[in-house]
Amino acid sequence: MHVDFSKLGGLAPAVIQDDSTGRVLMVGFMNEEAFRRTVETGFANFYSRSRNKLWLKGETSGHRLVVKSIATDCDQDAILIRVEPLGPGVCHEGYQSCFFRTLRDGEWVVNEERTYDPNTTYGGSK
Amino acid sequence: MHVDFSKLGGLAPAVIQDDSTGRVLMVGFMNEEAFRRTVETGFANFYSRSRNKLWLKGETSGHRLVVKSIATDCDQDAILIRVEPLGPGVCHEGYQSCFFRTLRDGEWVVNEERTYDPNTTYGGSK
Repeated sequence: MHVDFSKLGGLAPAVIQDDSTGRVLMVGFMNEEAFRRTVETGFANFYSRSRNKLWLKGETSGHRLVVKSIATDCDQDAILIRVEPLGPGVCHEGYQSCFFRTLRDGEWVVNEERTYDPNTTYGGSK
Repeated sequence: MHVDFSKLGGLAPAVIQDDSTGRVLMVGFMNEEAFRRTVETGFANFYSRSRNKLWLKGETSGHRLVVKSIATDCDQDAILIRVEPLGPGVCHEGYQSCFFRTLRDGEWVVNEERTYDPNTTYGGSK
């Protein structure tokens, strides 16, 4: 189950897609260990570039991502994971998807409502 | 329409999703100029890390990606583009999607047929 992590200094982008709706929920980065943990545990794990550590998605919020299938691309340097998201939203800002901003006439516009209150869930932290 | 290109040395991952089917077709990288050209022309442009140059998807094959909508994520460091793909496939290996390999029992397995002959389309080049 080789993935080429060399092109981004040990990381590969991982696209997270809702298995039932097809919505793209987030893009994270995995190193080899995060990918291994994802495969072995069945929950999406990432490598946080800002915190320089492995990160189980949902470890604070409980909003884990249950792996349904894992694909890789032609160059084997990107990962696509279809998931069942647990909880009301994947984004730490309270939205169902991190991609809640759409380009309209040259400006990013938020065109959906939050699905939960991130201050209650995260208590101010991510 | 700010995008944070600083985290990957001037690049941001761009997820390409089929607007009509929801299938994730590829992940490419854009620098600021590729993103600007994508917005201005309505066709997906990328930055090739292997060739170190801007790249209009479909410039050789004709399989351009017509932009239907553009979104960014909470950190504004990833891009999601919904497209209408022109032609039978996005992948230079002849498949509809670059994500034609799925993990099965620890091995990457190809579980779909090619939709076109890449040797005819590309003549051996990408």
